[in-house]
Amino acid sequence: MGQEFGGPLDFATVLHRMRPDLQRVEDRLLEETALEFPLIGDILRTLILAGGKRLRPLLLLLAAKPFRYDLDRLVPAAAGIELLHTASLIHDDSLDGASVRRGQPTLNALFDPSVVIMVGDYMFARSAMLAASTMNPRVLAVFAHCLGSICDGQLRELFAARRTDVSLDDYQHRIYGKTASLFAGSAEIGAILAEAPDDQIELLRDFGGAMGMAFQIVDDVLDFRATENEIGKPAGQDLRQGTVTLPILLFFQNGKATSEERAFVEQVIAEGAPDDDALARALQLIRTSGALEEALDYARRYVEDAKALLAGLPPTEGRDMLAAVADHALARRL
Amino acid sequence: MGQEFGGPLDFATVLHRMRPDLQRVEDRLLEETALEFPLIGDILRTLILAGGKRLRPLLLLLAAKPFRYDLDRLVPAAAGIELLHTASLIHDDSLDGASVRRGQPTLNALFDPSVVIMVGDYMFARSAMLAASTMNPRVLAVFAHCLGSICDGQLRELFAARRTDVSLDDYQHRIYGKTASLFAGSAEIGAILAEAPDDQIELLRDFGGAMGMAFQIVDDVLDFRATENEIGKPAGQDLRQGTVTLPILLFFQNGKATSEERAFVEQVIAEGAPDDDALARALQLIRTSGALEEALDYARRYVEDAKALLAGLPPTEGRDMLAAVADHALARRL
Repeated sequence: MGQEFGGPLDFATVLHRMRPDLQRVEDRLLEETALEFPLIGDILRTLILAGGKRLRPLLLLLAAKPFRYDLDRLVPAAAGIELLHTASLIHDDSLDGASVRRGQPTLNALFDPSVVIMVGDYMFARSAMLAASTMNPRVLAVFAHCLGSICDGQLRELFAARRTDVSLDDYQHRIYGKTASLFAGSAEIGAILAEAPDDQIELLRDFGGAMGMAFQIVDDVLDFRATENEIGKPAGQDLRQGTVTLPILLFFQNGKATSEERAFVEQVIAEGAPDDDALARALQLIRTSGALEEALDYARRYVEDAKALLAGLPPTEGRDMLAAVADHALARRL
Repeated sequence: MGQEFGGPLDFATVLHRMRPDLQRVEDRLLEETALEFPLIGDILRTLILAGGKRLRPLLLLLAAKPFRYDLDRLVPAAAGIELLHTASLIHDDSLDGASVRRGQPTLNALFDPSVVIMVGDYMFARSAMLAASTMNPRVLAVFAHCLGSICDGQLRELFAARRTDVSLDDYQHRIYGKTASLFAGSAEIGAILAEAPDDQIELLRDFGGAMGMAFQIVDDVLDFRATENEIGKPAGQDLRQGTVTLPILLFFQNGKATSEERAFVEQVIAEGAPDDDALARALQLIRTSGALEEALDYARRYVEDAKALLAGLPPTEGRDMLAAVADHALARRL
């Protein structure tokens, strides 16, 4: 266990200390690809290895750390959560279609979309089986709830496309489902499997949820800030697809733009940009309106809320690590 | 329990006798749609209600009937199997794209493909959770194996498109994965949950597998025989997509066609039909070559094999019902 009064940690240190435990999750994920069906196994391996920083498994493990930290129980659940995330990302990408494919070589460029959809299906079902292998009904219930939330959030996003009458409440509801719910569920499952007291399970779920909200808001800001090279996909994707995210919402509301400028961006969202110049102009209007900074303030407040919750946990190394992970939500390539 | 020496039953009688039990599966499936997320629930209800005869749940229940027949244990597993089947059908349809949409109003016509894919994802994961709710590791292992087989079979079909060098062995391997494995798994899971002896579990799995092979061969023959109205989709779909099924394979091999005719059909498969007339000519060449009748002989042999296996079961009403279900594989709208 840890330094009782540890100072602030940085994310790289957390990753370094957790590397052996995360490696076990990685090994468990790769076990999923060692199948008697070589066709699926090969494709699955490519899809899984293309994955990111394993933030959700990390969160699940760290939520368990202040309590009964038993890797044998935690690893299958962490692998299940990551597999669900990867599957959902893959299907999301293949549905996004052309604009994503214009970016760096994505999986859609490597495989026929049908192949990606089918292997994604396999991953969805396997993820649920991994969660089920904990044989813990409460874990299964949380997993089921996450699954419903993600699907609900993604449907909301689909139905919200090209609509400009999106409220802050709609936006928060949608990104909670699409993104924050799985962060919340990861922390909750870690705490349940570590036999944390009920109030601390709830606290860790709320921590994960708040951190997940910050994570998605930063993602939505990055879509305006980054160049294609930085985030590996073309900038302005949300605007191009007509999805109103927090920066766009704040652009409409903060009173910095003229009514002609607002009308112009509204039209790009509702009807699509007639050409690349129009898209670039809309992006530039939003970038210079102060909306990105205001959106980041929202993300910062979520991270502060998340970290404030940690005061209710035992003062352990795990707690310090959770704080570092929450801070990381803000630090990503900004 | 039943008549010890029952005479042959017909499928309608089986359906009639099993109606209350199948209704419980139906209710369990609809329970899956009563969610706190109304968006998913509504779409899910439409997708589930569009389903067919519930052949796989029927097989699962009937495989349990000669043993310890406990509906409380069987119903969640039967619902899980049907949900897996429905999800896989839905994704298969949305991948087939245009040619399917030209048929009767499909789900693709009712919903945006992205919506169907997402709700299908949800169904894949929920199906695994239903299977897991049996808390029976052996059932979970069979379910996992079915899932792998289906995905493997569908990938083989994708990779086989526009290839004419398909052997009988390739074809059987592919349809076992795509279709027969889930029939085999349904019967196996029913027998496991009913605590049948191991040799009878194996027997029932083989019965389901043989019946499933017949079922898919008949399906592949129907694709040549039926008019659009009879099977609810345009005839000649397989030929159009360049998928070599048993009738096409036998057309190439049975020596009834001239080498010019064979070359013509080969070209349609490898390069696609240049127009509707070419497709119609290829269809007609196969129809008049005797290949459909020969393919049905294969199906008949599978059904005979399946029924011969039943001799190893206790002589119960369940056994007679299984025989009637096997016969039904041949009787579908021919």
